[in-house]
Amino acid sequence: MTDVRDGAAADGAAGSAPGRGVSRRALLGGGIAAGLGMVAGVGGVLGAQGISAARASDETVDLLQSHPFYVTDKGMPQPGITTAPQCYCVFMTFDLAAGSVARSLQVLLARWSAAIAQLQAGKTVGAVAPSRGVGAGQDTGEALDLGPASLTVTVGLGPGVFGDRFGLAGRRPAKLAELPTLPSDRLDPALTGGDLSLQACADDPQVAYHAIRDLARIARGTATVRWTVLGFGRASAGPHQTTPRNLFGFKDGTRNVSTDADFDKWVWAGSDDQAWMAGGTYQIARKIQMNIEIWDADDVADQQKIFGRMKVDGAPLSGGTEHTTPDFAVRDAAGQTKIDLRSHIALAAHENNDGVKILRRPYNYTDGLNQYGQLDAGLLFLTYMNDPEHFVRLQRRLGASDLLNEYIGHVGSAVFAVPPAPATGSYIGEALFA
Amino acid sequence: MTDVRDGAAADGAAGSAPGRGVSRRALLGGGIAAGLGMVAGVGGVLGAQGISAARASDETVDLLQSHPFYVTDKGMPQPGITTAPQCYCVFMTFDLAAGSVARSLQVLLARWSAAIAQLQAGKTVGAVAPSRGVGAGQDTGEALDLGPASLTVTVGLGPGVFGDRFGLAGRRPAKLAELPTLPSDRLDPALTGGDLSLQACADDPQVAYHAIRDLARIARGTATVRWTVLGFGRASAGPHQTTPRNLFGFKDGTRNVSTDADFDKWVWAGSDDQAWMAGGTYQIARKIQMNIEIWDADDVADQQKIFGRMKVDGAPLSGGTEHTTPDFAVRDAAGQTKIDLRSHIALAAHENNDGVKILRRPYNYTDGLNQYGQLDAGLLFLTYMNDPEHFVRLQRRLGASDLLNEYIGHVGSAVFAVPPAPATGSYIGEALFA
Repeated sequence: MTDVRDGAAADGAAGSAPGRGVSRRALLGGGIAAGLGMVAGVGGVLGAQGISAARASDETVDLLQSHPFYVTDKGMPQPGITTAPQCYCVFMTFDLAAGSVARSLQVLLARWSAAIAQLQAGKTVGAVAPSRGVGAGQDTGEALDLGPASLTVTVGLGPGVFGDRFGLAGRRPAKLAELPTLPSDRLDPALTGGDLSLQACADDPQVAYHAIRDLARIARGTATVRWTVLGFGRASAGPHQTTPRNLFGFKDGTRNVSTDADFDKWVWAGSDDQAWMAGGTYQIARKIQMNIEIWDADDVADQQKIFGRMKVDGAPLSGGTEHTTPDFAVRDAAGQTKIDLRSHIALAAHENNDGVKILRRPYNYTDGLNQYGQLDAGLLFLTYMNDPEHFVRLQRRLGASDLLNEYIGHVGSAVFAVPPAPATGSYIGEALFA
Repeated sequence: MTDVRDGAAADGAAGSAPGRGVSRRALLGGGIAAGLGMVAGVGGVLGAQGISAARASDETVDLLQSHPFYVTDKGMPQPGITTAPQCYCVFMTFDLAAGSVARSLQVLLARWSAAIAQLQAGKTVGAVAPSRGVGAGQDTGEALDLGPASLTVTVGLGPGVFGDRFGLAGRRPAKLAELPTLPSDRLDPALTGGDLSLQACADDPQVAYHAIRDLARIARGTATVRWTVLGFGRASAGPHQTTPRNLFGFKDGTRNVSTDADFDKWVWAGSDDQAWMAGGTYQIARKIQMNIEIWDADDVADQQKIFGRMKVDGAPLSGGTEHTTPDFAVRDAAGQTKIDLRSHIALAAHENNDGVKILRRPYNYTDGLNQYGQLDAGLLFLTYMNDPEHFVRLQRRLGASDLLNEYIGHVGSAVFAVPPAPATGSYIGEALFA
């Protein structure tokens, strides 16, 4: 089983960066089946439970699946962007330490790359126990024998990398800048920014956590941890259920970027960007707190009005099924649009935003209880685009008018440039230093 | 595929509570294979990855497996105690609200039981969307279509239930009392105690979290949430690797309670206990903070001395392989015991504690970063025994002398009586009110 990108490349995807194409089917349908390592034809065992093999084939996670880290063609994206979402994600940002210079960053990116290649293959980053136990282990050991579990690690470079400090100002990605203050931001400074980001996704939380922990360890002396969020989620199974649900119980990601043309138009950095960013993209991370206990007390009809979709099947309120295109003009007998124009899907729809689309890769999170003894939970909203202004545009509208704002708050935020994947023998961001 | 208890029952397990026997093989070996829903004979698919089917058969998680909630025989334990550990756990304790009376508790236990039966079957606790959307959903919806994922929910009753308040003092379990202060306790009052406990384990975090969230919702008005921990872990695969690892990178659980005789002797409540506890047990939960960044800097030889085992293969320092019985007397050339007598395994070993054993069900946890910007992580130590004094005895020794104490702190703690599982038509703890 291989990365969905490989399959798409074999299809001869068109676009400025050959082989990067990802079809809707690959990403959201068959791609999730492939990405979660669905095993077909196990009716002999599962039949004993009275479950049909047809359904069961969507319900098995293969923890031996691995994604390659190095690519053969220049300009391929890093893993973890088009990779079908794994069940678990650890996101962490770092600040480059006071004494760091460009060379420190370069060495860190090279060391991280070598370590990530090992980790994605299900190996340790080095010896768990050095000879005769003298010295600390290079690898902390808790993921020994757990398999690759579809691990992907995605590395981002924040605006701070391109200040005067490292002599890289002339290499700043065309669209990279700190995000402006957005309507209804309730950002906690302890959950914002960072010079570097790591997104580790895997089908086993211990594998994802181990990766981040050991990469943070490698960064010691060069970069310090800034903030982190641990996310979870799973695309549901069966022929009609492939979109994961958020903790409001609604499907999240139904209208995600899906066609090769849209990936090229909206996700991959264009020819107007720095040469070293060719095949790269931008990552925005938002930690969105959700008041799930208040939400739970709301009428489901009201919840559906807020999202613009039915809760159970995800169909737009204008009718049809989950993947029916919403009709924002159709009206009910009383003359009101069936989909409220302040609903989440109306404000976010590309039809209402000059076509703008962003690739969403959301995970749910929980932080236990808040100071009021209520469940503290929400969404780790990871999103990719070739211009952060696209997110800013959407969030200006959502932050100002979204009916959902009564129940959520954006508490964390950061933006990063994501270089393309390295070829064998190279490392992430090498071209930046050329 | 069925609960490991069923298999053991079919073997005609001996003991005072027929059918409750769990063999070592079922719990730690074949039982984990069964519990994680290992699928055999999938070489056709996995062969494409160059991985042998023999190993692959240990590496697949089946998310459609379910455990029954109701039992046919009186005196069977609740699920989640002998059930092979799932990959994810949410533990939560509750305080009964000021206005609650015995009847409120009785109704809550009955409602929880009905809901848990639904949840363990992979169903919702009621309608996600009521008719025409009027009113709140009975179920919050985020686990729709995710399957049972081997969910088990285990319910405990704390000492507060048996005070004067509910008229149940005469029914107090023989061994239930608040734990004494123990050496090196660093307990946070916000992470201690509780009148009720819920332990939800599943192979999907969203399924486990959904269960706890919807059960907490049912408790509203009767009980308030007190503290919670989210844990993860996975027994590793392959013929020689079945013991999960903690975040110190060491195997945790090698010498767990395993034989039917030991379950009867050390885990299940005996005939000297309340009649309604027959087939029940006691649960102690400890939140143990681990200073993993300091640990990571230590010599592996020192780490091994602290545990008394090799890090990679888990063999005791006295020699052999993981499951070789440690020899606490054998000495090296310099005359020192090969296993330090202050090591974790020496202090915890039943040979050195008049035979005392407790059933351990540990999960790793992480809370992100602490106030110093270091990784905040540790162990959710869930343990079962027929007398909490057994834990107290072990922890008095460990807390006083364990070499590991330099790197850990017990910050959370609670004790509960765990009634047996209900028969169909009954509910957890019904006999308590008879």
